[in-house]
Amino acid sequence: MGRKKEKGTLIVLSGPSGVGKSTVIAELLSARKDIHFSVSFTTRQPRAGEEDGVNYNFVTRQRFEEMIANDELLEYAEYVHNYYGTSLRVIREELAAGIDVLLDIEVQGAAKVREKCPDAVCIFIIPPSFEELSRRLHSRATDSEEVIQGRLQKAREECRQVPNYDYLVVNDKVSEAAAEIIAILTAEGCRTKNRLNLLEGV
Amino acid sequence: MGRKKEKGTLIVLSGPSGVGKSTVIAELLSARKDIHFSVSFTTRQPRAGEEDGVNYNFVTRQRFEEMIANDELLEYAEYVHNYYGTSLRVIREELAAGIDVLLDIEVQGAAKVREKCPDAVCIFIIPPSFEELSRRLHSRATDSEEVIQGRLQKAREECRQVPNYDYLVVNDKVSEAAAEIIAILTAEGCRTKNRLNLLEGV
Repeated sequence: MGRKKEKGTLIVLSGPSGVGKSTVIAELLSARKDIHFSVSFTTRQPRAGEEDGVNYNFVTRQRFEEMIANDELLEYAEYVHNYYGTSLRVIREELAAGIDVLLDIEVQGAAKVREKCPDAVCIFIIPPSFEELSRRLHSRATDSEEVIQGRLQKAREECRQVPNYDYLVVNDKVSEAAAEIIAILTAEGCRTKNRLNLLEGV
Repeated sequence: MGRKKEKGTLIVLSGPSGVGKSTVIAELLSARKDIHFSVSFTTRQPRAGEEDGVNYNFVTRQRFEEMIANDELLEYAEYVHNYYGTSLRVIREELAAGIDVLLDIEVQGAAKVREKCPDAVCIFIIPPSFEELSRRLHSRATDSEEVIQGRLQKAREECRQVPNYDYLVVNDKVSEAAAEIIAILTAEGCRTKNRLNLLEGV
């Protein structure tokens, strides 16, 4: 009975703008260095300081359209004449190699992921309250009041998709939210269907 | 958005004789003092040192048969003219009060629990190998070789029921097995279906 992991877990994280998702992800990845954060593909130009393969995989429009045609993408969208998407091929290769892969993705993209990868573990992060989300968005001081109201409206709409997610985590304290996600991933690793190989020697 | 737990989780733990289940349970209950260990009902006489309500709830045969007739039992069995069983009423009351309840129960009893409580979280504990299980059974030095061989045979039969369990935990090191069970319970608490009340204020 080895403990070798046969297949990686695909982890989908969604949550409204301002919920503090990237802080939680940073804490999670620092505790679980074996998890690979999936880098999106995009056709837009790199901004100052952005690195190819780190912030995004920067590709030409022609290459991106090839990926669409070859059904290489798990999900994609076009914003302001630029494509953004997730490579299904890269993720499949990593999962097959036993690597856990984390996707930070919004609700529509997550719905497509669930369709193509029904085994994905889908986690939605909510704020402790909408008042707190509003406070966090205001404290960033980067957006106009109109933009903030738009984000709050969008957050309420996104939260309607919560019942489609496997797990719901409240980001009250970052360390607690990250600890819950780590527990979820440990538990998923203990699921009988992911461990039947342990019974082979029995 | 409160964090109040609306309903407790019913946790079913099974595993072959000699796997070290009671040690794992002791470690689990010491870390999670909020979990209530379910005490079985029996009609047999208390042995020296056994306490009513701690080791078993000792009841008369008449009372036990009343419990059967009133469908008060989650599961029961008769061994050597004595009944052993789990009170469904007590467990339902505890779960309704938001208490997590742990049942240490063998595979047939667990099958009945799953039938009556489909939301139960069922965990099966296996040894790292059968050689190790054999070693543990021999090191107890309480059973004859014939009894040990019988236990090993029964263990192999019980392991065939593993696919019916939600989670599989290997008891290699007690602390690691207990930590995995704690993670499973944390994750179960994060399941969207158990947390939809958190969205009420959204």
